Parts: sequence; C-alpha cells; structure tokens
Amino acid sequence: MTQRIVIIGGGAAGIDVLEFLLREQTEREKAEITLIKREQEGFFSSCGLPFALQGRYELNELVLFEPEFYREKGVDFKTGTEVTGINVPGNFVQLATGEEFPYDALVIATGSRPFLPQIPGTTLEGVFTLWSRADGERLKAVLDGEGPKNAVVIGGGMIGLQAAVAFARNGLKTTVVECCPSLLPAILDPDMASVVHKWLRNDVTFQLGRSVRAIEGAGHVVSVSVNEEAIATDLVLIAAGMRPNVELAREAGLAIGACGGIVVDQSLRVKRAGSYLNNVYALGDCIEAIDAVTKRSRLSQLASTALIQARVVTSNLRGGTATYEGCLSPTVAAIGGLQVGSVGVTTAYARSCEMNVTAGTAITYTKARFFPTRKLIVAKLLFDPDTEKLIGTQLVSEEGIAERINELTLAIKAGATATDLIMRERCFEPSLTMVEDVIVDAAMKARKRDTTP
Amino acid sequence: MTQRIVIIGGGAAGIDVLEFLLREQTEREKAEITLIKREQEGFFSSCGLPFALQGRYELNELVLFEPEFYREKGVDFKTGTEVTGINVPGNFVQLATGEEFPYDALVIATGSRPFLPQIPGTTLEGVFTLWSRADGERLKAVLDGEGPKNAVVIGGGMIGLQAAVAFARNGLKTTVVECCPSLLPAILDPDMASVVHKWLRNDVTFQLGRSVRAIEGAGHVVSVSVNEEAIATDLVLIAAGMRPNVELAREAGLAIGACGGIVVDQSLRVKRAGSYLNNVYALGDCIEAIDAVTKRSRLSQLASTALIQARVVTSNLRGGTATYEGCLSPTVAAIGGLQVGSVGVTTAYARSCEMNVTAGTAITYTKARFFPTRKLIVAKLLFDPDTEKLIGTQLVSEEGIAERINELTLAIKAGATATDLIMRERCFEPSLTMVEDVIVDAAMKARKRDTTP
Repeated sequence: MTQRIVIIGGGAAGIDVLEFLLREQTEREKAEITLIKREQEGFFSSCGLPFALQGRYELNELVLFEPEFYREKGVDFKTGTEVTGINVPGNFVQLATGEEFPYDALVIATGSRPFLPQIPGTTLEGVFTLWSRADGERLKAVLDGEGPKNAVVIGGGMIGLQAAVAFARNGLKTTVVECCPSLLPAILDPDMASVVHKWLRNDVTFQLGRSVRAIEGAGHVVSVSVNEEAIATDLVLIAAGMRPNVELAREAGLAIGACGGIVVDQSLRVKRAGSYLNNVYALGDCIEAIDAVTKRSRLSQLASTALIQARVVTSNLRGGTATYEGCLSPTVAAIGGLQVGSVGVTTAYARSCEMNVTAGTAITYTKARFFPTRKLIVAKLLFDPDTEKLIGTQLVSEEGIAERINELTLAIKAGATATDLIMRERCFEPSLTMVEDVIVDAAMKARKRDTTP
Repeated sequence: MTQRIVIIGGGAAGIDVLEFLLREQTEREKAEITLIKREQEGFFSSCGLPFALQGRYELNELVLFEPEFYREKGVDFKTGTEVTGINVPGNFVQLATGEEFPYDALVIATGSRPFLPQIPGTTLEGVFTLWSRADGERLKAVLDGEGPKNAVVIGGGMIGLQAAVAFARNGLKTTVVECCPSLLPAILDPDMASVVHKWLRNDVTFQLGRSVRAIEGAGHVVSVSVNEEAIATDLVLIAAGMRPNVELAREAGLAIGACGGIVVDQSLRVKRAGSYLNNVYALGDCIEAIDAVTKRSRLSQLASTALIQARVVTSNLRGGTATYEGCLSPTVAAIGGLQVGSVGVTTAYARSCEMNVTAGTAITYTKARFFPTRKLIVAKLLFDPDTEKLIGTQLVSEEGIAERINELTLAIKAGATATDLIMRERCFEPSLTMVEDVIVDAAMKARKRDTTP
C-alpha cells in the first residue's frame, strides 16, 4: 500500500524533507506526498533577505522553487492553506476549509516567527519584522519609496545587525538597541563581540545593555523610548529572536519543552501522553534539540540544523533507524564586510550549564605576513578544563571564517584537544594561509605549558 | 650542565626548531643553540618566490628574519658556513673552515634542492631553478631586464605552474612540458587536473605526456627539444621536483630510505648501524615520513610538514616523548587565480600501494545559487571501499579551498566515512556558503545507496 506522507510547513525544514523524499525515491517505495503551507510561494530563502535589502539582488531571486516545480514531480503542494488541527488518534489533519486530510506519517515543520516584545506600539505603521517574503517586500517598498531618514533596530543579533547594515547603506541614520551589554550574545563572548562593535560603529549607533520601553506614535511610529531617552525614528525593525510555532502541536497534545519547542526523541518522533509516536515527526525551528556539548535541550533555529534533521526524518519515514546526534549549531554571518562565526558553547552558555571553560584568544593574519592582501583574523577557542577537549569556537575576520567553523565543528565532534589542534597538519601557501594558523595560536594560548611546543 | 644543540640548515625546518626552542625556553632549561647554514640570510621564505616573480611584492619581503634577530636572542647563528661532515661517534660536526663543533644534540635539517634531469644543457645560460633567494634574484633580474620573449617550464607541478603564470603575466610566451599525461600528478587525478588545464590554457601552452630530451644552445639557451620537436626559447625553468639533501647524512653512516630521504623513527631520531641514535634528529624535506593512509615511506616536502615535525623534535630535545603520527600532506596552491588543494592519497598513489578506491566527484557553488559572487567549486573525494573511510580529497575553485582541505585533513585523521560527512552540521549563510556543501555532494556520489538521504 502506498504510504501517505503529510508535511506541515514549507520553510527550509519541510522543503528539505520533501526534497530528500523525492531525491532517492524509487517506483516501489513511492509515497503520496502532501505539503501544506500557509504562504503562497514554493520555497523562499529567508536567510537571503538582509542581502536583498542591501541591494545585492532582487527579492524575487529568493523564491528558489515555485509550487509548480514540486507539483510536476507529483507532490500535492498546497499553498495558501492553513492547518487548523492535528488529530493524532485519527491520523488526520484538519484544514481551515473544514477538509480532513488523512496521513500514514506526519511531519511537523511549522517553523518559527519573529518574537514581538511585550511593549506598546509594535503594531504601529513603520514597525517591521524580517522573516517572510511579505516582510521583505513591505520593508523594501519603504526603503525604495520616499524613504525614512532614521531606523531603530531592536536586537543586536545576526539578523538585526545585517539589517542595520542594509539600512545604513540605504542612507538611514541607524541605531541598534540590544538589551545585553554586548552584540551577538547568543554566539559571541563580549571580548569577541567588541571586535564587531568597533567594526560597525562608524556606520551604526549602538545602545547596548538597554531596553526598549515603548514604540511611540499615532498611526505611524515617531520614536522609540530606550530607558529614559526617546530616539526619533520613522522606521523600527524588531529582530529580537524567533519563537517556535508550536500552537498546532500543543493543541494536539504533543509535549512542549522548557525552551518552548516541540519535544522529540533521537529519531525526531514527537511525544504525546508520555510516549513517542511512531508516525509523527517534527524538525527544524519548531523543535528542541539536544546540545551536543552540554547535553541540554535548546533551540537550534538554523537552516543547517534543519537540513541534518531532515536527513534523519526522511530516513526514518523510509523505515530506517537514523538518529539525530545533537547539535553544535555552527553559525556564520557576513555583517558589513566582516565575517563572524561561532560553534559549540559560548562562555556565558557554558556557565549557565555549570561548566567551566579554559579560553585561548589569538589575533594574526589570514595569509603570510608578507602577502599584501592578508587580513587580520581573531580566534577564541574554549576548552573543557577537565577533559581538555574543545567545546566552543568564535572567529572574526574579513575572510575564511565559514570553513574554519566547519573544521572546528568536526574537531569538537571528534573530541580534539588543544594539543591535537596544535600537532595537526594544515596546508600552507603564502597567498592563502599562514603556516601557523590562528587556530593553532589560540590553542597554544589556552593550553597549559607542557613539553610540546 | 647546559645542553649544546646544533642545527644544520636554516630553511623552514631548521628555523622552526630554533623558533620553538626559543619560544618556550625557561632560564633553567636554557640551551646553547647553534644554527649553521650555507646561505647568507636569516630566514627566507622559498614558498613566496613565485608571487614575487608575479610582481605581488619585492623579493626582499621574503627575508622574514635577519641573522641579527636570532643573534640578539643569544643564538650562535652562523650564515655562509658549510658543514662538511658529521662525526656521530665523536658528537661533533666538521666545518669547511676545519673547525670542529661539538654537540650534545644534533638536528639535521639540510632540506632539499631542485632535481636536475639527466639531459644535456642544464648548465646553459638562461636555464634556471626556483628555490633559493639567489635563484629568485637571478630570474627576477632577467625578467626585469631586456627580457626574454619565450619561456619553457620543465615540470607541471605547483612551482612549475605558479612560475608559468608569472612568466605569462610578464608577457612571455610560455610553454609547460610535463612528462605525465596530466598536470599536478602528485596531488591531482587526471580528471581534476583537467580543470586546471582548461583554466590556464589561454595563457600557457602545455605539452603533456612529453619529455624534454635536451636543452640546446651555445652559451645561452636557444631551444628545448621535446620528443622530436624543438621549441625556441630564451628562458628555461627546471621545476621537476626536489631531491633531499642527504650527502652529509649518508657520509656519516646514517640510513637512507628507498625514496632517497633520511630514515627516522616516530621520535624523528636518525638510524645508524641498525639502531636509532638518542641525540640526533632529522626533519623536513631531507627525511622520509610515514604516510598516514598507506603506512609507507614517502617524502613530504612541505613547510607545513616541517612545522609539525619541528614540534616533535623540539619536544624530544627537551626530554619529551612526542611522536610524529605520519603525514597526510595537505597541500594548497594558488595558480593564476585558481586554488587547487589536495590531501591524502590520489587514485594513482593508492593503486601503486595496491589500495582500491571509491570516488565521488561533484561540482556546485561556493555560495548560495542566488548570490551574485558565487564561484564554481569541484570536489573529488576518495574512500577506502572496505572501511568506507575517507582517504583522499582534491578540490579546485577560485575560493575556499585551503580551509576545506584543513577540514578534510581532520576528517581523514578522524576516520570519517561518507555518511559521517553527509550527516555532519555545517554553517550556512547565503553570502558565504551553500547549505549543502560540495563536500556533501561528493560524499553522496561516492556512497552506495542506503536509507539515509
């Protein structure tokens, strides 16, 4: 009998599962696949939004696949369609149209939405979030039109900073308000964040360690109150993090964790009434994953996390026994010409989990000292002082960050110590690398003196 | 009693040992260090020569440290000094001056020199090699002077191709003659080498699978005979590989291996009369290392290999018990705007060691498909079909090669399989990476179909 698979959600997580189901599908195991999404487009890359605002390309470049692309492959690809309920005992989903849609296996990929702080004024005109295609179109229209003169960004994370750069490049006087005392607090320690701060402060004004009390205006925003001060502005972007969309799951009786995401087991099956369901999976921004370093639940709302989870879900939909090994959440972002990367724990996150860290920080070049196009690069490595193993890395430079983050993701996973990093071969060519990489320098700083130089 | 350490050779290997001895030296363990080198300069970066010929910087930028730099640190840094013998039983080295120089510990870092094929004409005027500062100065003077119109490069390896690009950029009609049927045969399979060939063929003429029979001329070179053809030229560069400098070692009775390098154990101690000496070490271009994949002896004549070996030697000079784990010889080179990288075995090398390989090759982008500055990237991964482990990687693109080679060096060392590479998290940001990296694509191509997509 043909298996009926229903996927709720057409963001990266849902589309990845769909792609993987189609990619290696044989005639024999062919499933009837339905994907149900609220939005009108096929697959839209939200990660590409800030660069569209910067003018690197048109917004419609981010529609990577139209619905027809999937329909021609035999997928029942439902756009503009709202799921209003999941009936777990009955194995069907309820649509807003009243239609009941049966499944043999269900994949919940409902994603996340921008968090709106509990302050007055978030619904005023001129207040935006940046997540959906519609968000991007609204904001782009405002930037391209008569145009605002000032912008306030609430939140100094990746999306907030990338958008702030876009606003500044559009000629807006831009202020970023971040309630933590340093930028990018989820991925960088304050010392590393200060490098980013210095890089951006000529173009963007920062209000760090301050909270927005209210967005003021009548109809349209006119100012933002930060502590006792009012910052006049005609545009506000709220980039204060993402919240998992778990309403459907909660109403269906599925377990929700302490971080607000759907609870899953290693097979990425959801939990209901104390046991994990054999035919309902969840993945992506809406679930809680186990952090591979701290072993605690966390949200890992990255397209790259969803990709690996989609491989696990697809394998298990086919009767496999794949398991999700936990996340290290390697992250990279280009912010105004600077590249920022992070993987594993930060010092603050480690401490919140009652873990100690030994840190080593180094600054050197990306290429040989004599090579004219060399750039500075800063690295901070965090080790567990008991096991001596690498548990976190933070990197900032104008180049070469993503690949080093990937390398160190593997190093954390492989249980590498500082000595392992120091004694390992690395390729050298003066126009491309230094013979002693910044990673090696940072590892030496972190390591206690021993006999191996 | 203060230990007297003598280092023969002031290339990368000798200088690395010297640097590491100085770097963590305490007053208590302070050694009397003598470094003896034939050349006049302190430390000269040979790897930087091709880019100086390309005009990226002046040759003197490559003198990274003057002798005074080390002398001020208390090192007896002897330049322009020839060692004529090592008396192992007597624990002293003999200088050309007749002086005898005693040691408690000796480090042999005599390096390598360009191989000169056994053909007529290698001593004609206009025939060059590219290794020493003097080589670079002679060649630069010719390029900057009245100037030759044509160049022939013998050897299609890294140095040969980098020099050929430099010649072409100086306006010379340049031909590269390589006896193997494809370029870069030591690091690339023919299919990957063809990408490099196509990239360069508008600027450089190639004669592949052909041998130079003679360099012709009376006094000055006028042509090169390749098979039956004479190629008119006024400049010839011989870049046909490097030969270890082992004459001193051989005359001192030290064991020399089948690849022509000094035999060492895992502690990098040399062998004499059947046993390893406790106080004589060798490292760098002049020794044979164990290949970490094939477990066979090989030459690994890279500055990066010497660096790791120098850590081992320095540790052991201090009474440590460090061991050299064998080499994977990660390599990268920028060749006319293209970056080429390799680590572990090639198909030809694996077969010569009677190993089978399973290969996967993929071509995709370095950044998201919609990102305007994306570049093509080609990857070939080689796996052992029995253990399914990664044993070799070859990569070509205009960007991002060095760091991927470093990552895959670690992957080989960690025993990663294709599935490990596919299921591992990688960072994603559309201006910097693809969500599915070319490494993942290549691993999927190599892997037999299974249930994990």
